[in-house]
Amino acid sequence: MQEQIYHLQFAMDTFYFLMCGVLVMWMAAGFSMLEAGMVRSKNTTEILTKNVALYSIACIMYLICGYQLMYQGGFFLSGMTELDVDATLAEFAGREDGFTGDSIYAGASDFFFQVVFVATAMSIVSGAVAERMKLWAFLVFAVVLTGVIYPVQGSWTWGELPVFGLYDLGELGFSDFAGSGIVHMAGASAALAGVLLLGARKGKYTADGKAHAIPGANMPLATLGTLILWMGWFGFNGGSVLKLGDMANANEVAVVFVNTNAAAAAGAIGALILSVVLFRKADLTMVLNGALAGLVAITAEPSTPTPLQATLFGAIAGCIVVGAIIGMDKLKIDDPVGAISVHGVVGLFGLLLVPLTNSDSSFSGQLIGAATIFVWVFVTSLVVWAILKQVMGIRVSEQAEYEGVDRSECGVEAYPEFVSSVK
Amino acid sequence: MQEQIYHLQFAMDTFYFLMCGVLVMWMAAGFSMLEAGMVRSKNTTEILTKNVALYSIACIMYLICGYQLMYQGGFFLSGMTELDVDATLAEFAGREDGFTGDSIYAGASDFFFQVVFVATAMSIVSGAVAERMKLWAFLVFAVVLTGVIYPVQGSWTWGELPVFGLYDLGELGFSDFAGSGIVHMAGASAALAGVLLLGARKGKYTADGKAHAIPGANMPLATLGTLILWMGWFGFNGGSVLKLGDMANANEVAVVFVNTNAAAAAGAIGALILSVVLFRKADLTMVLNGALAGLVAITAEPSTPTPLQATLFGAIAGCIVVGAIIGMDKLKIDDPVGAISVHGVVGLFGLLLVPLTNSDSSFSGQLIGAATIFVWVFVTSLVVWAILKQVMGIRVSEQAEYEGVDRSECGVEAYPEFVSSVK
Amino acid sequence: MQEQIYHLQFAMDTFYFLMCGVLVMWMAAGFSMLEAGMVRSKNTTEILTKNVALYSIACIMYLICGYQLMYQGGFFLSGMTELDVDATLAEFAGREDGFTGDSIYAGASDFFFQVVFVATAMSIVSGAVAERMKLWAFLVFAVVLTGVIYPVQGSWTWGELPVFGLYDLGELGFSDFAGSGIVHMAGASAALAGVLLLGARKGKYTADGKAHAIPGANMPLATLGTLILWMGWFGFNGGSVLKLGDMANANEVAVVFVNTNAAAAAGAIGALILSVVLFRKADLTMVLNGALAGLVAITAEPSTPTPLQATLFGAIAGCIVVGAIIGMDKLKIDDPVGAISVHGVVGLFGLLLVPLTNSDSSFSGQLIGAATIFVWVFVTSLVVWAILKQVMGIRVSEQAEYEGVDRSECGVEAYPEFVSSVK
Repeated sequence: MQEQIYHLQFAMDTFYFLMCGVLVMWMAAGFSMLEAGMVRSKNTTEILTKNVALYSIACIMYLICGYQLMYQGGFFLSGMTELDVDATLAEFAGREDGFTGDSIYAGASDFFFQVVFVATAMSIVSGAVAERMKLWAFLVFAVVLTGVIYPVQGSWTWGELPVFGLYDLGELGFSDFAGSGIVHMAGASAALAGVLLLGARKGKYTADGKAHAIPGANMPLATLGTLILWMGWFGFNGGSVLKLGDMANANEVAVVFVNTNAAAAAGAIGALILSVVLFRKADLTMVLNGALAGLVAITAEPSTPTPLQATLFGAIAGCIVVGAIIGMDKLKIDDPVGAISVHGVVGLFGLLLVPLTNSDSSFSGQLIGAATIFVWVFVTSLVVWAILKQVMGIRVSEQAEYEGVDRSECGVEAYPEFVSSVK
Repeated sequence: MQEQIYHLQFAMDTFYFLMCGVLVMWMAAGFSMLEAGMVRSKNTTEILTKNVALYSIACIMYLICGYQLMYQGGFFLSGMTELDVDATLAEFAGREDGFTGDSIYAGASDFFFQVVFVATAMSIVSGAVAERMKLWAFLVFAVVLTGVIYPVQGSWTWGELPVFGLYDLGELGFSDFAGSGIVHMAGASAALAGVLLLGARKGKYTADGKAHAIPGANMPLATLGTLILWMGWFGFNGGSVLKLGDMANANEVAVVFVNTNAAAAAGAIGALILSVVLFRKADLTMVLNGALAGLVAITAEPSTPTPLQATLFGAIAGCIVVGAIIGMDKLKIDDPVGAISVHGVVGLFGLLLVPLTNSDSSFSGQLIGAATIFVWVFVTSLVVWAILKQVMGIRVSEQAEYEGVDRSECGVEAYPEFVSSVK
Repeated sequence: MQEQIYHLQFAMDTFYFLMCGVLVMWMAAGFSMLEAGMVRSKNTTEILTKNVALYSIACIMYLICGYQLMYQGGFFLSGMTELDVDATLAEFAGREDGFTGDSIYAGASDFFFQVVFVATAMSIVSGAVAERMKLWAFLVFAVVLTGVIYPVQGSWTWGELPVFGLYDLGELGFSDFAGSGIVHMAGASAALAGVLLLGARKGKYTADGKAHAIPGANMPLATLGTLILWMGWFGFNGGSVLKLGDMANANEVAVVFVNTNAAAAAGAIGALILSVVLFRKADLTMVLNGALAGLVAITAEPSTPTPLQATLFGAIAGCIVVGAIIGMDKLKIDDPVGAISVHGVVGLFGLLLVPLTNSDSSFSGQLIGAATIFVWVFVTSLVVWAILKQVMGIRVSEQAEYEGVDRSECGVEAYPEFVSSVK
């Protein structure tokens, strides 16, 4: 009977990982719809193509080398189809922590859960460089980020390797539960490097420095994308508990769900109220980014705050993101979907919140961790973008940008029948 | 080993609640897309904003006071992050009903499952008052409904409190498994009160009493929304079994899934056939509302009918909703998405079906319960709407209605590039 | 305690079936959005109506007779609501294979998982015959396919009945894990029969045999549909392991998830690269069909390949589908969404891949199985389509085709406000 119980716990924890992984995979659709809704119709097919392709590239590269780099195991996962059940039972029986300790689950379910995180990080980039980057430069960058840049920094925290053998982030008090830094700020850092080399869209900033609003073509899509992300985030944060199958862990998973939802809700309302105060209008794009900001902020530590604290954190994040989006335009950092603000600025904010409720982390540790991730991802990305700029160019021609990259890159219009009032 | 089994059951039931809760949360996207597809393009951004905001408000208000009002517990859920495992194990061991009795699960998972129900009730309102209500009046109403009106009536059935201390609905034979009445009819009652005070959209009814069709702008969105709701309803009804972790309950959950699906399918076909008989056309909006009607009707009791009975109930509901939508127009009750017909009329029908298959309920009990819910929600809502009308106004200006509320309320067009043939 | 463990395993396997079933049900939305995005706007409402109605018909017909035909059990599922717990416990205890053998779960969960597969097969047909078939001819065909044609061939493999009492596909070495043949090639065979009798859309092929591109109206919808299908496929393939609740099975489910994802990703990239080589453009529709091709190809055997093999298989499938779509146009087989190429050609390819990694199957068995399915479904479908053509006609009038079937069949425009540049 003891063995049967181990069987059940193994199956339950594996299934939990897989269901959470499906929810995170679904976030690929969320980013696709959000970005497709926030760009102009002439650039929509291309952003969709980018999103499907980057998810696919992430899955392939993480299989080929990323997972190995990050967790020192599982090259090609070639021995994965058969499980040595007896050895796994012995592993259960031999553990000092007994039944309620760390999870033991199918290795494939771990790979599945991790691979969809890489894709999330890369998805953040696509929105920020939308409407003027060359498709193939972007895809080559995706190969490098998902195959090397992301896994290397991931190995420093979730892989528990010291940073270049020099210092150990965990020992310094750095904690990032589900990846406000490792996934979201990392993605935003890569995006920022790209945007700086790429420049703003034509017509975005006037000669006297004013930002010109370029409205997204399809608000229902953007809203759908945000709600998909919200849904998927339950898997993102909830799965990051890494175990379901005993009372303490199951309770933690449930708390994470509640806090994730509370932070998102408060982020939406915070941004709504601030946008009404600032603009006298309920700006839907700000509300959507506010919800996402709440989600990013709670991601660094969704298990220790009370739901009321999570609500408060989310509300502040929702306000921060409104300010950050305005600030980016002042700095002429052109980010069509606000990805750098949502995932970068608020990602950092999320990291800094952790010590308020989790005594295992420290402000200094969080700052060192954030700096480490930012410097690594930003610098390596800048180098890769710069090389791509030299070798193949990263920006489409003025003509292509004017006509829309759908025509030049994809040859397929997103809405071929709908007469457009925008050139 | 006995303790390990309790651990597993606790974890399984918690996970089941969380997965069902995610599906119900996803219904927020369903309502958003359905309503965005059924209104005109000039009012689309605003209905999206309302939907995201109302979900967020529901989550915050239910945390602050709603959950406490409904279940007398959990103020702010402040002690939620840590679980007393030993006390929970003792609770398992001390139960007379043993292993197969009521579920014991993480409190946070219960909150999560309940909070998404509140949002569902409020979502129903947004569709009915679309295209002419002020955003802020709506949001203030959302605060009151989700924080007070809904939880108070919820406490009478699911919270097992007597109605104002006077009579006990359960004792009178009222049964509402997953909320045909408590959620759907309640939402529709609040919507009806709002619509009566708000009046019809300009141009909806001609002077001689004829209804003028105002087609929705985006049928794929409306269809997507309906299919999202259909999917989410498996969590809505399936989760309302409240336990998964033994054979009898797992079987009941499975039966609920089958019956929920059967009723929706039959509702769609019933409405399809009736609409062809009446209009000689396969009216997609009727098919969608038919599917939703099937879902609402089976919600009051999805566990006791056979699948064939569920199919029959759904088919009748699909026909009823076609008649109800036509009837509402005769009464000049202008409901752009048919929410009052789907959730109110069919919600009542669903309650009346229960005694046919569940002998624990009675027709008189169902009628008393339905009347109790309707009177409470309708009257309190009417009062709140009336106060809002006095204080801040609930209807936008004629100019704003003509130009679309997206411009006046949100300052963001839903489809800024697509040339519109409608003013 | 032994009984409690059986309770838990029963509940876990039932829940696993239900969650996978929900994901497959969600594929109905995937097909709806994919097809709605790939047709012209004037035919969008009708394809949405068809999709909702065919799913509903499949659910009703499979309940009435299909499930009985396929698995010889469960007429009307009338005895389903109550489970004999003692008998089920005895069934557990009496099995020779013990705890780790075949799954024992709620009968209703099996029905739910199977019924959504029928709907998938029928969904494949709707895309291929889009834009010119009469709605009611299609729906009558749906009744026959889901009620008889599909279940009969399903009974030969998954129902383990000999083909017309003559030969046993399983004994001959035919293996089709989740239905590359039984579901996907079967659907495509029925579609091919319909398309041959129906003919191409007006203007699709010029007199000198050239194919005229007819772009789909809404690429974000098509992309969303593809990503929904990708997500749903985890349930489709993952649920086809048919058991979760012990280590070996849980591991197999996890492997299936990883391989399904890898094949889809590689299919997208394969098609992307080939389309750039052939057309110098990153054709999004090819990328989407490539992802679907990867999914179809791995469906026949997702549990035995290594992830790297699954990636390779997917990449080849992505290339095959590009060639197949081009080839279909050369043959003047007009398939607006590429369904016959994706599900038929690649479905066959998937079947032929099985013996490479699964030694229980043989090439001859796969060929015999594929031929059996194709001949049965194609011939019976051809007969049904031919009868329908005689009795009620299967093609809309030229006038209706020119104006769009939304007007003639549904009376509801999909995008009534958006000015169209296409007639």
